[in-house]
Amino acid sequence: MDEILLMLPGPTTVHPRVLNAMSQAVVNHRGAKYGEILTETSELMSDVFQTSNQSYLLTGSGTAAMEAAISNVVNSGEKILNVVGGKFGERFMKIANAHGITTEELAVEWGTAVTPEAIKAALDADEDIKAVSVVHNETSTGVAAPIEAIGKVMKDYDALYIVDTVSSLGGDYVDVDKFGIDVCITGSQKCIAAPPGMAAITLSDDAWAAADKVDSHTFYLDMQAAKKSGDKNPPQTPYTPSVSLTYAMNEALKMVMEEGLENRVARHHKAAKASVAASKALGLELFADEKVSSATVTAVKMPEGVTDAEFRGTTRDKYGVELAGGQDHLKGNIFRIGHMGNISYKELVQTFAAIGMTLKGLGAIEDAGAGVASITESYL
Amino acid sequence: MDEILLMLPGPTTVHPRVLNAMSQAVVNHRGAKYGEILTETSELMSDVFQTSNQSYLLTGSGTAAMEAAISNVVNSGEKILNVVGGKFGERFMKIANAHGITTEELAVEWGTAVTPEAIKAALDADEDIKAVSVVHNETSTGVAAPIEAIGKVMKDYDALYIVDTVSSLGGDYVDVDKFGIDVCITGSQKCIAAPPGMAAITLSDDAWAAADKVDSHTFYLDMQAAKKSGDKNPPQTPYTPSVSLTYAMNEALKMVMEEGLENRVARHHKAAKASVAASKALGLELFADEKVSSATVTAVKMPEGVTDAEFRGTTRDKYGVELAGGQDHLKGNIFRIGHMGNISYKELVQTFAAIGMTLKGLGAIEDAGAGVASITESYL
Ligand SMILES: Cc1ncc(COP(=O)(O)O)c(C=O)c1O
Ligand SMILES: Cc1ncc(COP(=O)(O)O)c(C=O)c1O
Repeated sequence: MDEILLMLPGPTTVHPRVLNAMSQAVVNHRGAKYGEILTETSELMSDVFQTSNQSYLLTGSGTAAMEAAISNVVNSGEKILNVVGGKFGERFMKIANAHGITTEELAVEWGTAVTPEAIKAALDADEDIKAVSVVHNETSTGVAAPIEAIGKVMKDYDALYIVDTVSSLGGDYVDVDKFGIDVCITGSQKCIAAPPGMAAITLSDDAWAAADKVDSHTFYLDMQAAKKSGDKNPPQTPYTPSVSLTYAMNEALKMVMEEGLENRVARHHKAAKASVAASKALGLELFADEKVSSATVTAVKMPEGVTDAEFRGTTRDKYGVELAGGQDHLKGNIFRIGHMGNISYKELVQTFAAIGMTLKGLGAIEDAGAGVASITESYL
Repeated sequence: MDEILLMLPGPTTVHPRVLNAMSQAVVNHRGAKYGEILTETSELMSDVFQTSNQSYLLTGSGTAAMEAAISNVVNSGEKILNVVGGKFGERFMKIANAHGITTEELAVEWGTAVTPEAIKAALDADEDIKAVSVVHNETSTGVAAPIEAIGKVMKDYDALYIVDTVSSLGGDYVDVDKFGIDVCITGSQKCIAAPPGMAAITLSDDAWAAADKVDSHTFYLDMQAAKKSGDKNPPQTPYTPSVSLTYAMNEALKMVMEEGLENRVARHHKAAKASVAASKALGLELFADEKVSSATVTAVKMPEGVTDAEFRGTTRDKYGVELAGGQDHLKGNIFRIGHMGNISYKELVQTFAAIGMTLKGLGAIEDAGAGVASITESYL
């Protein structure tokens, strides 16, 4: 493999410590040794979620956890309120539809965040809403939703509070218990900086009570089965887990806790601030409303006359920096800088140097160095 | 990790070549490089399935592929015939039930195999049957179903032929196209000898035609989405794939093809024959009907008076050989020797030495060396 710097909103660069842990010999997933690793990793996961509830690892990607989050606690025919301000909010709604759940869309302009007031109004208008889905960090637009404030609203309603923290957990402030989140999910390959392929989910007592009444249409993602196996001695997963990715998650979560959640979140916020400032210094326009812009991904409008292929092709092939493009109708209109996981000034310096040189090479800007200079100011 | 020899029916010991491949740096799953690896790995997968149809990798375990196999081609309300002669046949039926599919059980005594005649009779008796599920290698009982002969029967009926080759592909003879299999699935961690966490599926034209008419209740395992993403340039998966396990599967499948399918199948059959003979030489009784016993796992009755805990505890903790127990009602009544993946006389010698010493130590047999001596005879 070439040494390409991944500045994607997942997967992120995986530390050698994690890659080494992953390549340990595979053990029996029904034995005591795996039971210990599973228990420790689930506990670390709960520490990072900041919940006293049990966390479960799923062998699957973040989308598998999204489906588990919805399908286990809302019955087909029941109603869910889906906040949709980007691709992942939309995905929650598609998943609900696939399960025959009645969906109510709370549409939010892409690039802006939902407000707690809008959620309150929607809940007041329809008392049949059984659950509300919110994407904390809408990776497609670079917007962070105010999940703490929404949690305060949700406390006055019976509806379950389902939050996707796939691209924020370990990079932005998430406190599942304090925010009153009933179902929280995340993925391995974003701020936790393990390889992709594993996801995690945690459910509150209310969520488990709802799950008892749900006739889930999924088998693989059935959380009752996960609970039953997790309660065994030694603890297990219902089906064969990705043993190697459990090792990787274990090591990556240890690195998160060694750094400390608060430090890690502060580091991500610093990277976000620096990225925003550097983008502006290059004369670029941000896609997301700056007041709600993400701690882990910065979405930037593509300068007039520059194509996605030439821009991202050059940063990658000429300068070794891999950026993300826009998704769906944003394809070609924005690019996204993921500053997740093991990110410091040094990756941002390389990134903004590459962006500056590429855009100058394409004749889109005058001063190739303004971005990278700005990064040094931010980090001083 | 201690050096424990895994003689389980999955996960199996992973070769260092595969572990090394797995620990390569993670790349962008939307980029050209991953597209190449995905394409090559899918093609290798089709080579091993022996099909000209496209194969798809799923980030999930074998059970995820089982659910994909059923839920994508049979609608809720339609009827499926499930052959049930062990835990995995049962699981297919549970999955069908979870999806609101009407199930008809073709019950087979555990330890024996279904006959093509029984399947013909069931199909003749009920023309509403839309699909038939068969587990090729019933890992819970050590029985191989006659999937080639069943395929000949199936050719006279419209019903789709769904076959689970999770614990046989790469170890027993499977020719998807020749046998007329419509949906075939497998897992990474058995005869292919990669780590667990990835599965594969391939569908015939008839299966895709059925899928077009199915209103699938799964989102994560929706094969239409997989097809759409697979057709992109570069080829992709609909959600973030386990990049590291794709590397691992790629390397493991290359090792399968380097050995040659025929050689590999012959090697597994040799190991099975040797295991059966060595078990008998120790005076042990086989659980499965010997005429249909598996090429990849041998199920042995637990000798009178020996508990599972003391038997398998000793082989593992004292002799470093990890065997599998019985599942469900067979718990404590049988043990299972997985001889899958990278298995030669040397692993079997260690295994039967460990079994012999353990049983003699427990006072259950007289001659500790009869099994291991028999292995040398078999391999001469
Ligand atoms: C916010 C969010 N939710 C869910 C997902 C889906 O995760 P995966 O691609 O691992 O299925 C992503 C992935 O980008 C994401 O950013
Ligand atoms: C025949 C068969 N089918 C399906 C499975 C399920 O695979 P997994 O445990 O990877 O979900 C297994 C696993 O033992 C199996 O042996």
